Amino acid sequence: MIGEQVKKDSLRRLRKIEGQVKGIQKMVEQRKYCIDIINQITAVRRALDVVSLKVMRRHIESCVTEAIKQEKPQEKVDELMETIYKFVK
Amino acid sequence: MIGEQVKKDSLRRLRKIEGQVKGIQKMVEQRKYCIDIINQITAVRRALDVVSLKVMRRHIESCVTEAIKQEKPQEKVDELMETIYKFVK
Amino acid sequence: MIGEQVKKDSLRRLRKIEGQVKGIQKMVEQRKYCIDIINQITAVRRALDVVSLKVMRRHIESCVTEAIKQEKPQEKVDELMETIYKFVK
Amino acid sequence: MIGEQVKKDSLRRLRKIEGQVKGIQKMVEQRKYCIDIINQITAVRRALDVVSLKVMRRHIESCVTEAIKQEKPQEKVDELMETIYKFVK
Repeated sequence: MIGEQVKKDSLRRLRKIEGQVKGIQKMVEQRKYCIDIINQITAVRRALDVVSLKVMRRHIESCVTEAIKQEKPQEKVDELMETIYKFVK
Repeated sequence: MIGEQVKKDSLRRLRKIEGQVKGIQKMVEQRKYCIDIINQITAVRRALDVVSLKVMRRHIESCVTEAIKQEKPQEKVDELMETIYKFVK
Repeated sequence: MIGEQVKKDSLRRLRKIEGQVKGIQKMVEQRKYCIDIINQITAVRRALDVVSLKVMRRHIESCVTEAIKQEKPQEKVDELMETIYKFVK
Repeated sequence: MIGEQVKKDSLRRLRKIEGQVKGIQKMVEQRKYCIDIINQITAVRRALDVVSLKVMRRHIESCVTEAIKQEKPQEKVDELMETIYKFVK
């Protein structure tokens, strides 16, 4: 489970991302230049990646760490690898 | 410039994406399971990719096509490749 | 079809990539540190991306341009977008 | 450090990848259709991703696990996250 710090930081980032998505909607409505729209979407994607990686880090430091200490890492590591796999492809 | 159809379709998708981002904020607030948060972010990323590619297609069919017909493709192709490059890395 | 310049440049890059892949094999045989192996694989992936994008650029400047000039862009643009889509996901 | 099984499996995959890279060189030499070259490069990229993820899994199961058990996870988790970050962007 995410801690207080990751929660705060993620929320701050996700609210900014929400604002960026609304900004892209406006760009589309006003038929802004295609390349500018695409680049703005790319920026949002990167911002989302940062949130994902921060949550992933927290997950490794809490759930995966706990599972390792209890000598039952298998399931958690399977799940983590599957998530990374979906994330990268 | 994007046409009426791409505009409509992109706006519909971007509104759904905005809803998904809000949903992720709620997941974070309620400290949902990290892996579920990450997978939801991955889903948004894919949804954004679809919008990017639809706008890119439109851009190729309008601006790039126009530049090619006017025998001045260089600048538009440079810009397109740079955008794809940023998009994939 | 790729021209002489892209052919030369791509071959040079692909030979270097072949060497890098052999280098990774050696790292694996000697059981080098996992993180170093992964980072080396990431470097090869980026080098492959560069080749892809150079070939893609050439493709846009030749085949796609030709199709646009002959007023039959549909099929070529479909194919290009599908290729970009596979490439990014 | 990678174990015997990951070593064997990775080497088998990397040799196949080497063969694929040589195959792409031939495609470039014979000036095959650009889209076919790009799709073949995309296939190699995916094959490399599989090796990366298998090595990463092993790394988590050995080094990271060891660091967690010794209550000194910080450095290893930092390094892992940085590697995933480089890998995804």
